[in-house]
Amino acid sequence: MTTSAWLPEGASAVACLTFDVDAETGILSADAAAADHAMAISHQQFGPDVGVPRLLDILADLRVPATFFFPGWVAERRPALVERIAAAGHEIAHHSYSHVPATSMTSDEERRDFARAMDVFADIGVPIHGHRAGLWEASWSTPAIVAEHGLTYDSSLMSRDAPYRVRTPGGPIVELPPHWSLDDWEQYAFLPFPQIGQQITNPSEVLAMWKAEVDAMRRFGSLFMLTNHPFLTGRASRAVAFEQLVGHILDAGDVPVLTCHDLAERLAGVDLPEHDHVRPELEPDLFPTAG
Amino acid sequence: MTTSAWLPEGASAVACLTFDVDAETGILSADAAAADHAMAISHQQFGPDVGVPRLLDILADLRVPATFFFPGWVAERRPALVERIAAAGHEIAHHSYSHVPATSMTSDEERRDFARAMDVFADIGVPIHGHRAGLWEASWSTPAIVAEHGLTYDSSLMSRDAPYRVRTPGGPIVELPPHWSLDDWEQYAFLPFPQIGQQITNPSEVLAMWKAEVDAMRRFGSLFMLTNHPFLTGRASRAVAFEQLVGHILDAGDVPVLTCHDLAERLAGVDLPEHDHVRPELEPDLFPTAG
Amino acid sequence: MTTSAWLPEGASAVACLTFDVDAETGILSADAAAADHAMAISHQQFGPDVGVPRLLDILADLRVPATFFFPGWVAERRPALVERIAAAGHEIAHHSYSHVPATSMTSDEERRDFARAMDVFADIGVPIHGHRAGLWEASWSTPAIVAEHGLTYDSSLMSRDAPYRVRTPGGPIVELPPHWSLDDWEQYAFLPFPQIGQQITNPSEVLAMWKAEVDAMRRFGSLFMLTNHPFLTGRASRAVAFEQLVGHILDAGDVPVLTCHDLAERLAGVDLPEHDHVRPELEPDLFPTAG
Amino acid sequence: MTTSAWLPEGASAVACLTFDVDAETGILSADAAAADHAMAISHQQFGPDVGVPRLLDILADLRVPATFFFPGWVAERRPALVERIAAAGHEIAHHSYSHVPATSMTSDEERRDFARAMDVFADIGVPIHGHRAGLWEASWSTPAIVAEHGLTYDSSLMSRDAPYRVRTPGGPIVELPPHWSLDDWEQYAFLPFPQIGQQITNPSEVLAMWKAEVDAMRRFGSLFMLTNHPFLTGRASRAVAFEQLVGHILDAGDVPVLTCHDLAERLAGVDLPEHDHVRPELEPDLFPTAG
Repeated sequence: MTTSAWLPEGASAVACLTFDVDAETGILSADAAAADHAMAISHQQFGPDVGVPRLLDILADLRVPATFFFPGWVAERRPALVERIAAAGHEIAHHSYSHVPATSMTSDEERRDFARAMDVFADIGVPIHGHRAGLWEASWSTPAIVAEHGLTYDSSLMSRDAPYRVRTPGGPIVELPPHWSLDDWEQYAFLPFPQIGQQITNPSEVLAMWKAEVDAMRRFGSLFMLTNHPFLTGRASRAVAFEQLVGHILDAGDVPVLTCHDLAERLAGVDLPEHDHVRPELEPDLFPTAG
Repeated sequence: MTTSAWLPEGASAVACLTFDVDAETGILSADAAAADHAMAISHQQFGPDVGVPRLLDILADLRVPATFFFPGWVAERRPALVERIAAAGHEIAHHSYSHVPATSMTSDEERRDFARAMDVFADIGVPIHGHRAGLWEASWSTPAIVAEHGLTYDSSLMSRDAPYRVRTPGGPIVELPPHWSLDDWEQYAFLPFPQIGQQITNPSEVLAMWKAEVDAMRRFGSLFMLTNHPFLTGRASRAVAFEQLVGHILDAGDVPVLTCHDLAERLAGVDLPEHDHVRPELEPDLFPTAG
Repeated sequence: MTTSAWLPEGASAVACLTFDVDAETGILSADAAAADHAMAISHQQFGPDVGVPRLLDILADLRVPATFFFPGWVAERRPALVERIAAAGHEIAHHSYSHVPATSMTSDEERRDFARAMDVFADIGVPIHGHRAGLWEASWSTPAIVAEHGLTYDSSLMSRDAPYRVRTPGGPIVELPPHWSLDDWEQYAFLPFPQIGQQITNPSEVLAMWKAEVDAMRRFGSLFMLTNHPFLTGRASRAVAFEQLVGHILDAGDVPVLTCHDLAERLAGVDLPEHDHVRPELEPDLFPTAG
Repeated sequence: MTTSAWLPEGASAVACLTFDVDAETGILSADAAAADHAMAISHQQFGPDVGVPRLLDILADLRVPATFFFPGWVAERRPALVERIAAAGHEIAHHSYSHVPATSMTSDEERRDFARAMDVFADIGVPIHGHRAGLWEASWSTPAIVAEHGLTYDSSLMSRDAPYRVRTPGGPIVELPPHWSLDDWEQYAFLPFPQIGQQITNPSEVLAMWKAEVDAMRRFGSLFMLTNHPFLTGRASRAVAFEQLVGHILDAGDVPVLTCHDLAERLAGVDLPEHDHVRPELEPDLFPTAG
């Protein structure tokens, strides 16, 4: 029942543990007026200030690598944090400059935003191999821009639950697909203004759901692409649930934990499904415009 | 306590396993602007690309038939998928052309949309016996249109939780009622734009709820009309929960699993409650208009 | 810790099982345009057509009385159902005429709506002793109108979780307070248009929560005022959960199940807390107007 | 893994049990039109009328102190309740005058609102040591205003999950950070108008989640800052769950329960992280304005 050509020898599934370090941009990209809300800003700053160090400790204890996606805006203001994460053996990856969704930009604006973040990472001196769109809101140009910059993978699209290739004018890139059901935002984000979520799920329920997903994905040869946010999962009981989840993955014995970069590297030359990335053509007036 | 005249010999309830293969139309029918959102489109394409094959494997393992409701737009673009499903012994049924709700169309527009889908199915060469309105949003004309096309059943209305007849100018049709509580959309759909849902329920909780519904329906002689979507239930842990649900139904021993068409056929000549299908007359100004 | 003067001899709490038979008015009072939505109308008609008979069977099996609150509009169209319920020994009570909230009416409009429902009940020939506002949205005039019509109780306000008296110009009435946490609407109502809810909770979780509430209320000497709706709780697994909840109440041994009328009668002459019912005076411009 | 310099000798964490006695201001601050809604007003009055006495009984039984944050508007109308709480050994603290969020006021308006509440507390004769912003919506001026009035702590910001200092022009104050995940509002608040919440979580699930948070916080040396509301947690089964939660805290043996004032006093002279409290500077046009 599985199409497991992509799996490492002996593996039934692969896990990537990823953290989007959105900090202030997680709310500023929703509404600049968020800057007037001191509590909301403090809520976001918990991520880099307390969440990241706490999660780094847990990752070190468990001896697993992770991938940290940084908006350029956040990396620019906290270069020491970026360096500390990289020095601990984790991957730093590209999460746009401003966290504003690419779907609300022109193609030129998206290119400028993308390049600006690349400049920030170059200034800090960390190598960048992959990209994730802010809010996963990739445009129809995004994979091409990723390829233009010589990055090897993207992690924003959801056509499959295992790696696939996306064809672009600049050659194919690897897609490492995330999914809403493996994101802590949908479980834990609660903030009335800007309204970024209204959920506070019991971490033990989230843990049970994600353990079951690991088990199901081992059956189908899938990629367990976990997307977490330090301002959310860095909270005490959620950090403990994260630790227990990784323990479950390690206990399985056949689910290697890889950085996105490491996984993308291993997939070079491997036969993967190939997808076009083209906007569907719509017959005029067939579908309504919500306006 | 049951009105079980409609039940097959020895059955306490009947189960229909249905899949609405909405693919892209699941979001385009909410807002044409969804076409600009590459991730959202990929999220929907997972349904036919990965979800349907995975679910077909599970159905084959369990040896149960299912009914797949296709919007004509989706069938037109994926005739091979339609044929593959039909060749596996499952029913293909009518789910409008565009998935735009009939309640937002004039009667003429609804008739044209309905006929256009019939043409698609005729071109592919699959027989069509029944219909389900997009979003279940049947109009006061819908049953009449179903009857005009010679189809024998509809599956959009909720007056009962067992089959009943709806009178139309073109003669009665059988209604096989669905319900919100037996739809995976309300459990699993999460997409911010177009905003089609904000729920990510643990599949094991959904499984527990639906198993209890099967058990309760055996007491009342009801129709367990399950409505699932491959872009949702095709995800790994949800597919496993679906498999376990069907296992529970089969273990009961007195809940036959039938296609909608097969069930409607068996009900020909059987005494069923008959309902009119007429818009309620409202006294002017008694109820407010939300505008 | 309890103020239990109101409790019947030997009782630790009292339970009232109430059903609001809103039928079509449950959605028409939100938006008259609901009449165009055939599925939504069918969804509401399930209440009187299937839900009420099913629940009457369960109540008869358990030998407990209930109170059925009818909007006059619904009673007018289904007098036989009203008579059947009354003939089974249950109470029929007043739930406005149109189910449109009193807070969106002038005082005169509310009086006319109230009187119109009284006329319907008089025509059918059922005695009326109490009232519940549509959506519990009592106005500052509502208790006075209840007293003017000679009714003895209202069940819309939430100042306490045990019976109390509300002073009105026409003399005090008894308030039998409901609460959002003991209403099935918040647990089970899901309908996108009119959007009356987005919840589909597992009935077994609702059952667990309400059993715990019964137990806690026995400690505090409270009134367990259950508000259910046949279009919701009449569904198979929910009806079974309702039956189990009543079983739990009966098993307690010290929680008598009374109709609202019976309870209000017993409270005549009993010392209860008395509350004024007066709109708070607001300093101009202190609080914002959402507009 | 902990930074536990702030913890009392032998303690792994500290718990503050706080109640925001919002009463009518909980809805009036959302919309003055709430005053027209008699049921909504009664829903809020349950807090001081029934909830507070019930919770005081539970606190007395458990022999633990709590902090009650009062909007000045509420204290002004219920001085006897304020005195009764203080006489029972609990702390009274400042929760703005009107409960209108400071982020919707000018700095001058916020100062006037703050001072007006101080006057109310002075008139009643209760000492005030700390402040919590309405809805936690502190402005960039709030800590300075707190310091200007000689108060020693604030409890509105979320940069850490242990006490820290916030620098202000008038000297540093102690921040005792709350969090959305430890507030009963997100679990229990349900009211359609004004729409202040749509959640009715099973109290036993809330209890399980908060017990796990206590346990996790003992590992990280955190402050368990519980924010509850008498109009919510004063309901029967929720009050019982609160009692069980405190029992869990006491059973731990290393989590002292302190008032906010007592904790802030103990932190005088203790080395704590220091944070600036400055609005982030935003590049023009980088982030969108939702308007």
